Order: sequence, then C-alpha cells, then structure tokens
Amino acid sequence: MGEFELLAKLRERLPDPGRRVDLGSGDDAAITVPGGATATSVDAIVEGVHFRRDEAGPGTIGRKALATALSDLAAMGAEPGEAYVVLGAPDDLGEDYLLVLLDGMLELAAGTGTTIAGGDLTRAPALTLAVTVVGHAGSAEELVPRDGAEVGDLLVLTGEIGGAAAGRLLLDQPALAEAVPEATAERLRARQLDPAPRLRSGRALAHAGARAMIDLSDGLAGDARHISRAGGVALAIKAAAVPLAAGVAEVAAASGRDPLQLAVGGGEDYELLAALPAQALAEASRAVGAAGETTLTRIGVVAAGDGVEIRLPGGGLLEAEGYDHFAGP
Amino acid sequence: MGEFELLAKLRERLPDPGRRVDLGSGDDAAITVPGGATATSVDAIVEGVHFRRDEAGPGTIGRKALATALSDLAAMGAEPGEAYVVLGAPDDLGEDYLLVLLDGMLELAAGTGTTIAGGDLTRAPALTLAVTVVGHAGSAEELVPRDGAEVGDLLVLTGEIGGAAAGRLLLDQPALAEAVPEATAERLRARQLDPAPRLRSGRALAHAGARAMIDLSDGLAGDARHISRAGGVALAIKAAAVPLAAGVAEVAAASGRDPLQLAVGGGEDYELLAALPAQALAEASRAVGAAGETTLTRIGVVAAGDGVEIRLPGGGLLEAEGYDHFAGP
Repeated sequence: MGEFELLAKLRERLPDPGRRVDLGSGDDAAITVPGGATATSVDAIVEGVHFRRDEAGPGTIGRKALATALSDLAAMGAEPGEAYVVLGAPDDLGEDYLLVLLDGMLELAAGTGTTIAGGDLTRAPALTLAVTVVGHAGSAEELVPRDGAEVGDLLVLTGEIGGAAAGRLLLDQPALAEAVPEATAERLRARQLDPAPRLRSGRALAHAGARAMIDLSDGLAGDARHISRAGGVALAIKAAAVPLAAGVAEVAAASGRDPLQLAVGGGEDYELLAALPAQALAEASRAVGAAGETTLTRIGVVAAGDGVEIRLPGGGLLEAEGYDHFAGP
Repeated sequence: MGEFELLAKLRERLPDPGRRVDLGSGDDAAITVPGGATATSVDAIVEGVHFRRDEAGPGTIGRKALATALSDLAAMGAEPGEAYVVLGAPDDLGEDYLLVLLDGMLELAAGTGTTIAGGDLTRAPALTLAVTVVGHAGSAEELVPRDGAEVGDLLVLTGEIGGAAAGRLLLDQPALAEAVPEATAERLRARQLDPAPRLRSGRALAHAGARAMIDLSDGLAGDARHISRAGGVALAIKAAAVPLAAGVAEVAAASGRDPLQLAVGGGEDYELLAALPAQALAEASRAVGAAGETTLTRIGVVAAGDGVEIRLPGGGLLEAEGYDHFAGP
C-alpha cells in the first residue's frame, strides 16, 4: 500500500473538525480562526527512547504521543484545540498497526475536544510520533507561564506522583509486581504507558489564579527547578506532603529504593505543579475537584532566594540535584 | 552534554521572537496572538528517506526541513509566522553539527520572517526533523485551498521545473555532470538539496485572485491531480509550455530519459501551481514578477470533467499516471 492510499485511509477515520477549523487535513495546510491567544507546543516520542513496542500496543502508543503533548497545554491552562501529527513508521509496520495507533490517538482527541487537523506520514527507521498541539484562551493573560511565581505563593500539586517511575520499575523487573496487588501493579504500569493530561485541572488552576504552572515530565525536583529559575524564586517543598500513588511505597521497598526517590526524581507523572496566591487555594481546590480528574494538594511555598529545597520528615533537607538520574531519557 | 545543556545552547541562538509571539521557546508552550486566520502545516524529513548526510551539510539539511514546511504556507498564500521544530538526533552527532543545522534553519527563518517559537529535542536512530509552521492571513478567505479551481480558469506555474529530479540524477550518478557546465550542475543539485519556498510569489498569487494552489512536492502530474480531484475539474496542461530548468534537457538526454519525465514526474521542485480566472493573469504575472523570486508561466486551463491531461508537442496525450515512479519517497 502506497503512502497516498494509507493517508487516505487514515484521513477517513478523522471525525469532523472542531469549530475553529475552517479546513482540516488534506490540503497544504489546515486553516483555523483562533480568536484569542494560542498556546502551541510540540512533543516527540521515539521507539526505543520513550517507549517499546513490546510494552504497549499501538493504541496506547498513539494515546501517549498525544497525551504528553496535551499535557503542555494543561500546564498553560489552555483549552485544547488542534493537533498536527507526524507519523514516522518503519517498513515492517502494517496498515492495521498504524490504523489502531491512530484510533488510540483519536479516542483521546475526542475525549479532550482536540481536532487532528493535519499531519505527515513518512518512513522512519524507528516508530516516531511528533505531535504539535495548539490550545486556545481568550487572551494571552489567561495563560499561565512558568515564570510568574511570587514570594509567599503556595505550591500545589495535582494528583499523586511516583506512579510512572514505579510503573517503569514493574515493566523492567516484572518480579517486583509481587509487592502489590495485581490491580495496583496494572495502575502503576498504566501511569507509565498511558498517562492522562490534566487539561481540565489546568484550566481550573488558571481560572483560580495560578501564577506559574508546569507539568511534571522531568520529575518534581527537576520541574520545580524550572519554576524556580524562571521566576527567580526559591521553592520549599515538604516531602511528607507530597502525595504518593498507591503502591509506590511497596514497589520502592521491594526494589531497595526510597519511595521519595520515585516521587521526586521520577519523571513522566504528567501531574501539574502550580504556584498560586494563598487566598486562591480554596477556590483552586474546589475548582480542581469540580474538574473531576484528580485532587489538589498543597506541598510547599515560594520563598525569596533561589533553588529547590525538599524538607524531609526528619527535618533534614533533600538535595534535589541528587535525583537527576531518574529524570528519564 | 545533557539534553538540557544542549537545549539551552540551541535556545541562546534564537533571535527575539516575532510580533505575534508573546512568549517564545522555553516554557511549556509558546503563546501567540494570531489576529486573523492561521494556516498550519507539518512536514518531516528523515535521514535515509529524504536526505543523506553525505550529500548535504547540516546547515543545508536544516534549511531544507524548514523550506519544505514553509512551501506549504506558500501554497496557501499565507504570511509565514512561527515554526516549531522537533529534532531527533542520533547519539553520534555532536553538538557542533546540531548547532550548524539550527543556524541553517535560522538563516532561512530570518530571510522569510519566521520565528522559531518552540521545539523538542530527542534521541533518534536517524536524524529526523519535523517542522510545524504556522502562517497568517487577515481572514480565512484570503487563503487559497486546493479545491477552488473553476472551469475556464487558467493554470499558472511559478519558476522552472525538473531541476530537483535532474539534481537527484546528478547526485546519484556523478558522471552525468559532464553533460552540463559545472555551474549548471551545481544549481541543479541545489534544487534538490536546498529548495526555496515561493512565499512571496504565493502571497502575490493569492492577492491576485488565485482560486486553487498547491506546491509541487510530488511532481507536476501528481500535484495537478490533487487540484483536479479536490475541485472536481479536469486540468489540461500543454507540455511545451512547461518551463524546464536550465540543464534538465541535457541531464535527461545523458541519462536516456525524456526531459518531460523529469519535469512532469519529478517531485520536490517546490514551485507553485495555481488556477486563476483569465482576467487575473496579467495582475498575477506582474505581482509575481514584483515579488522578485521567479517568473510565472501559463501552462494550461481548467476544463469540465476529471483527471489531468498533458498534451505533447506532437498532439498526443501523455498519461500522467505513468509518471508516478518518479514521485520520490
């Protein structure tokens, strides 16, 4: 089957484009009429670097490619709009595989209100997915950058973390799964293979007044450092307040690791870390709860100075720099 | 050198962002305030599929990746705005190589008014560049789709074609270069390795009233078919009117090919094919001339029916379907 035929088959599966899209896939370019401000991000995943074909089916791989890109829109508080997908496929992948991969992506697109408005299909030595996503907001001021944290702001975190790193351990060392019930192991593996972008939570935090926000792709320590450096402030995080995903403690113990290492140094949880004024906390918690995706937890404060301090239950300080080795590829 | 350090070095080279960009590279997403309508397209090139590292230096590869993406904006008549770049790099490529590649891309970006507003850097088994470009127009109506050709419209073509296919032959069979002066051979190889997007010509054609437009990436025959199918019309092209790049006839003869085969079946010329009302021809020719990139030639008409007819000088018809084998990867 030639590229044109496969492209036509892939296009047939696309639903009608979203309201901002005047002209969808099939022309030289998609035409949209954005209205206000746009947030645009691009994210690529490559077989052997970000995923393995023997660990996840094509639908899951397609979802992950779109999910990790959408997570950046969540971190801006943007409403998802359009996605543009480059699919680089090795010769040995059949048409069925690629159609299931697209279906996985379309499932997440439908669930998040995203229109796949264009793309490119090419041969490549390893399965490669590069996804550009465009999100929307009424104005640039409604979007939340990384650099707006102010001294005295509270640090809040959506959901629970460490799960993706624990899932990675379970995938690499299947025997560790004996440490937890199978349903828990399955959920941890899914945190690694099939992450959920916190889009509604991100918009809720933006509306509630978040001044700086980032999604946790590199790990809490690393991503907190981005907020610290961008804003010229220090972040003080209380380790005991950081919510661990169920099973992280057991998997960490079974592998001889500190659970905090998975939670703070483990990347790819795709939860959101935000700084917001203290008076916005109640509304932010209510709004994230109403968004229905996950919880919101206060984990620290923004202080004068620089760097990221993670205070251990015993009172000592964890050097966040020491956790880089778990930051993933 | 880690990914973060290299990313920082790459970012240091980026000039100040364009006027629509509120927040450039370095946050979760770039923020722009588009204003009117946007045209968005994505294009990927992969080592071993679209280029070879022993044929083109890193700067040329970087330029080609951006040029082929921008060519789609040219075909919409859009003004180039932002580019988002995924760079997948094998481990053996050093920092210098990637910086020169980015510099090549930045050179073309500066020359075309494009802001590189974001990107992603990843390891990959083969050098891979996926570029998403966003172009702008006052409204969606100012942009030119593929499907607007009307019976009676004239078909016009920018520049001269066949050069990229002849350049491909010269690269594959260096002995063929004896058929032409070295300066001509060099220009033909450059048509293949370092194409120029016809951005100003595309805007000139849009303003002059072009109703359908496409860039020639698959070859004149194949791309004419896209306009024919999208518009539900037939295209009648006069082979003798199709302008050949200098040296194409000689390289074709030396390789035992019909020059028309290179011109009609050869892809990657990145010239523009447009359909416009007869009364718009004079203004379109003047405007393309004023754009200063290349010439405009009338090569045929839009007729009732379907399919693409290419009439040979002797009066016979060329079956365009027969040229698919030269359509490139």
